[in-house]
Formats: sequence, C-alpha cells, structure tokens
Amino acid sequence: MSARLIDGKAIAADIRADLREQVQRLPVQPGLATVLVGTRPDSVTYVNMKHRACAEVGVRSVRVELPESVSEAELVGRVRELNTDPQVHGILVQLPLPPHIDEERVLAQVSLEKDVDGFHPVNIGRLAMKNRDPLFVPCTPLGCIELLRHSGTAIAGRQAVVLGRSNIVGLPVALLLLRENATVTVCHSRTRDIAAVVRQADILVAAIGKPEYVQADWLRPGVTVIDVGINQKPDASSARGYRLVGDVDFDACRRVAGQITPVPGGTGPMTIAMLLRNTVRAAQRQVQNG
Amino acid sequence: MSARLIDGKAIAADIRADLREQVQRLPVQPGLATVLVGTRPDSVTYVNMKHRACAEVGVRSVRVELPESVSEAELVGRVRELNTDPQVHGILVQLPLPPHIDEERVLAQVSLEKDVDGFHPVNIGRLAMKNRDPLFVPCTPLGCIELLRHSGTAIAGRQAVVLGRSNIVGLPVALLLLRENATVTVCHSRTRDIAAVVRQADILVAAIGKPEYVQADWLRPGVTVIDVGINQKPDASSARGYRLVGDVDFDACRRVAGQITPVPGGTGPMTIAMLLRNTVRAAQRQVQNG
Ligand SMILES: NC(=O)C1=CN([C@@H]2O[C@H](COP(=O)(O)OP(=O)(O)OC[C@H]3O[C@@H](n4cnc5c(N)ncnc54)[C@H](OP(=O)(O)O)[C@@H]3O)[C@@H](O)[C@H]2O)C=CC1
Ligand SMILES: NC(=O)C1=CN([C@@H]2O[C@H](COP(=O)(O)OP(=O)(O)OC[C@H]3O[C@@H](n4cnc5c(N)ncnc54)[C@H](OP(=O)(O)O)[C@@H]3O)[C@@H](O)[C@H]2O)C=CC1
Repeated sequence: MSARLIDGKAIAADIRADLREQVQRLPVQPGLATVLVGTRPDSVTYVNMKHRACAEVGVRSVRVELPESVSEAELVGRVRELNTDPQVHGILVQLPLPPHIDEERVLAQVSLEKDVDGFHPVNIGRLAMKNRDPLFVPCTPLGCIELLRHSGTAIAGRQAVVLGRSNIVGLPVALLLLRENATVTVCHSRTRDIAAVVRQADILVAAIGKPEYVQADWLRPGVTVIDVGINQKPDASSARGYRLVGDVDFDACRRVAGQITPVPGGTGPMTIAMLLRNTVRAAQRQVQNG
Repeated sequence: MSARLIDGKAIAADIRADLREQVQRLPVQPGLATVLVGTRPDSVTYVNMKHRACAEVGVRSVRVELPESVSEAELVGRVRELNTDPQVHGILVQLPLPPHIDEERVLAQVSLEKDVDGFHPVNIGRLAMKNRDPLFVPCTPLGCIELLRHSGTAIAGRQAVVLGRSNIVGLPVALLLLRENATVTVCHSRTRDIAAVVRQADILVAAIGKPEYVQADWLRPGVTVIDVGINQKPDASSARGYRLVGDVDFDACRRVAGQITPVPGGTGPMTIAMLLRNTVRAAQRQVQNG
C-alpha cells in the first residue's frame, strides 16, 4: 500500500486562483505590509516569497526594512504608521526579532484588524478560548487544517497527535485541532516513548525541526500525516549540496500512512496561501466596516 | 490497595496560614474587589466564600454588586474605577456575566496588574505561549498543579489526560501541564473511546461536570487523579437532599489510583487559596513597583 499524497502545491494554487478573483471584485486593492528587522537570510527569503505571492494574486505589497539595531520604540512607531495607513490592510512583522526587542510588545501594537499573521496576543488568547473567535489565525497552523479538509480527513472525534509546541506552529495547530473537536495530544522534547504516543494517532502533525525523525513503525496504518518540518539534509548529488526533507521519514512512512504531505510541496505553499487569504479577508472586512 | 488521599483542605489551610504571615509583613493591606452582576445563587455563594477567605488571611475585600440589567458601559466604568483605586490590588469579575454583556470585552478592561483571576485575554494568550509569562494564572487550574506538587507527583515527561476543555478549567489546566513538560491529551464531549485514552494517563484531571463519570476500570493502576468536578447527587439521607460528588467514581477509583483528591475537600479549597495567593502577590508587586 502506498499513501495518497496531499498535494499542498496544487491546493495552494487553487486557493490563489480563487483569491485572484476575489481581489478583482474588491473596490480597493488589498495591501500587505511586511516589516523586516535585520538581514537574517531565512527571514529575507521568507519575506521575498511573500511579496512574490502577493504580486501573483494582485495584492499590493509594501516592504518596511529596518536595521538590526533599530530601537523598539522606532519599530513600534513604524507599526503604528502602518496601522493608520488606509492602503495597508494586513501587517506582518517577520519573526524572530532581535533579542533587544520585546516580541510580544511589538506584536501587541499591530491593529487587531490588520493582524493577518494572527500573532497579536489577543488573537492568540482568543484562539485558546472556547466561543471566542480570533480575527485571524496563524498561517502555518491554518494551512495544516486546510490540508486536512482538502484531503477529506475527518477531524471531529479523531485522535490527533501534534509533535512540537512552538508558538508559531505546534501550539496553535493543537488549539485549532481542538476547536475542530479532535482529541488532541501534544508531544515535545520531554515526551517519553513518543513512538507509543504517535501510534495512537489518526492524524499526526509533525513540527519539530528534526530531519526524517518520525519512523514508519511509529505509525498506525492509515494515519493522515501532515509534515510541517522543513530541514536541510546534506546531499552531494544536489547543486546546493543539500535537499529539503520534512520531520517524517517520507519514503518509509508513505508505505504505512493513509495520506501524507510531501516536503517540499506540502505545508510550505499553504502557509503563504493562508497569508494571502488572511490579507484579502482583512481588506474585505475593512471595506465593509468602512 | 487504596489510593493515598491528596488532602486539598489541609494543603489549602497551610497556604492560607503562610499567606496570613505574608500579609502581616506587607506595608499595605492587600485588597480584593469582587464584581458580581445579578443574583445567581451559585455566584453569590462563590463570592461570599471568597470574602470569608479574605477576612481569614487579613485581605481587605470590597464588594461591587450590580443589577442583572446593568449596561456593559456601566460595568466597564466600575472596573475602571477599581483599576485606579490604590486600596484594591486584585479585581475579580464573577463569571458568568449576563448574555447581553460581552465577557471578553469586560475582562480585557481589568488592569493586567490586578487580574488575579487570570482571565484577561492577554494573560490567557501568554499562558498559551512559550517563553511568555502571564502575570496571573486562573485559580482552579493553578490549584490543580499545586495539588500535584504537594502530592509529590512528577509531571515532566509524564502522560497527562485532561477531561474537559472549558475556558475556566480544562483548557488552562492543559496549558499549565504542558508548561510543566507533561505530554498532554485533552478530551471533551466529542472524544471517542474515552476509557482507552484515560488508560494512558499517569495524571488524570477530570473537569467535565458529570457526577461520578470516570470509572475505575478506565484507570491505569497507580495514576494520580485530580477531580475538579463539583456535582450534586440526590441523597435522601442528607438534610439538603443531596451530597456533593466529583466527576470520578471515588469509591471505586480509589482502589486503582495511586493518589486521588476527594470531593469535597480537594480542588475546591485550593481554588480559593490560589485566589488569595494571587491577590497577595498582586499587592506585593504593586508595593514594589511603587
Ligand atoms: N511549512 C511551513 O511553512 C513552516 C515550517 N516550519 C518548520 O517546522 C519545523 C518546526 O518549526 P518551529 O515550530 O518553529 O520549531 P521550534 O524549534 O520553535 O520548535 C520545535 C518543537 O519541537 C519539539 N521537539 C524538538 N525535538 C523533539 C523531539 N526529538 N521529539 C519531540 N519533540 C521535539 C520542541 O520541544 P520543546 O518545546 O520541548 O523544546 C519544540 O516544541 C521546522 O522544521 C521549521 O522549519 C516552520 C514554520 C513554517
Ligand atoms: N473545584 C473548583 O473550584 C471548581 C470546580 N468546577 C467544577 O468543574 C466541573 C467542570 O466545570 P467547567 O469546566 O466550568 O464545565 P463546562 O460545562 O464549562 O465544561 C465541561 C467540559 O467537559 C466536557 N464534557 C462534558 N461531558 C463530557 C463527557 N461525557 N466526556 C468528556 N468530556 C465531557 C465538555 O466538552 P465540550 O467542550 O465538547 O462541550 C466541556 O469541555 C464542574 O463540575 C464544575 O462544578 C468548576 C470551577 C471551579
């Protein structure tokens, strides 16, 4: 048996096509502002990808770039300017911020209505609470749920195991799965006998940042696997000297799983599609609310 | 074999004795304000218990009582007055609020420094996030952790199962257990085969509000059981016509569990002790910060 692939690249392309149409129907052009502090190569790459994706669906994008040495006050000042800029409907502060800046204080300054990354402390608090709806949900976790939906995997009443509890992936994924009425288990570096826990899963989300860590014999046959990991593995046959692999040993696990996302081409493209969707929805809301 | 009892009543009494001393050493008398809207009998009872407990440890308590029909604006106005009242160090808005009032908006008005109930959306958001520390943690969940500590139950690396995901008990308990490095599973009314999930638990926290629901044959021998449930069970032999039971079938489960909290006398007294502790700490902080 071989698992059915959950093709994040194709699903994300469909979502982008749909968003392109929605953008055309809007009376204003949606705008996304990215705020990048410093020049971390991975952050620069992510920001560039986001701008390219914006262009593709017709979202205007604005780039704010600040030196590594910027003061928190100055950064907050720039965020406040964006809050009042009518051409900017979504604001994304690229994380991580340099250590001299208090991340939570900065994120708390982003207007709730423009918090398309979903990391405003109030949006996170609402995500954790029953009967309170965050205006926006973090993009990678939202992309995981969307992949489950598109793959036809039932969530309610199923056992979901999440590997990882980071603020940007593991924990919000777990909160979203709980909202979808899964029975949710969260594992992390202190979990004992992780294989036995994973074996309970009908749905497994791996977000630990360890290349090919999840083994095939940990899986219950038929499980749906969402692999969030993006790791570099040395590979002499590649021009770059490495290739990208997930947190799951894909070649072995696909023989046991029922459905599985590839890396690359799984959760990665979905993250960006969800950012675009959040931005278009922010613009729609702001148009409606005048 | 019979489980060791975790005596919440005795542990809470020790904590109160310690707080009484701390209060005497403070240059100001700590003050707690309760805000009660309407006359729900259970809410009235809880508020009364809190005032009695304050008196016992030397905390001044102030009672704000508002009619069921109070407007949200008026309620918020009262909360703001308490925020600026130097004699009030902690503010507790008794929940639930009437349906015409937006609970989150009201809780968000409580000064973070005085949010001794821990329900400000920002405190909840911080509770959910790694490396962010809420100023205060909700009292019942905190009491559960404190009972585990006092019982000598190791948490890190153990499997914890939480039954219930309410905003006031289940979910914050799960987040706290995760912070303590347990591997945490959250169950709820949509969970299938709850017995099999419970059987994985080294630590079980039951907070579902169903009298004696958890059965002895669901338990792994030696498990530590924290029973948060407070339910009325008809009992002709009692003058009131009922007696209080937990969410766990105590008489049967104590034969399998390693340690267990009784109801009453388990989590109930701890909730109030934690409220007093939060209030005393709020006063200590406010004295320090001038
Ligand atoms: N597809 C996408 O768009 C995105 C992909 N990613 C990728 O997802 C992965 C995770 O990212 P992120 O959440 O930011 O990573 P973090 O490093 O912030 O968090 C990793 C989490 O995994 C846990 N963990 C580490 N080792 C183990 C182990 N051996 N067993 C169980 N748990 C373990 C850690 O536990 P503890 O808390 O105890 O330390 C931690 O909770 C990375 O590969 C990253 O590149 C990230 C963002 C977007
Ligand atoms: N000791 C103390 O100081 C306190 C005690 N309590 C007591 O704790 C208990 C829970 O209170 P609270 O959290 O406010 O209650 P809620 O009614 O708000 O929440 C109950 C939770 O239990 C879940 N649940 C209900 N039935 C089942 C079932 N058959 N199997 C699994 N899960 C189920 C619900 O699931 P779903 O989300 O799917 O509906 C929900 O998440 C009550 O008995 C209450 O009196 C409460 C506060 C303080």
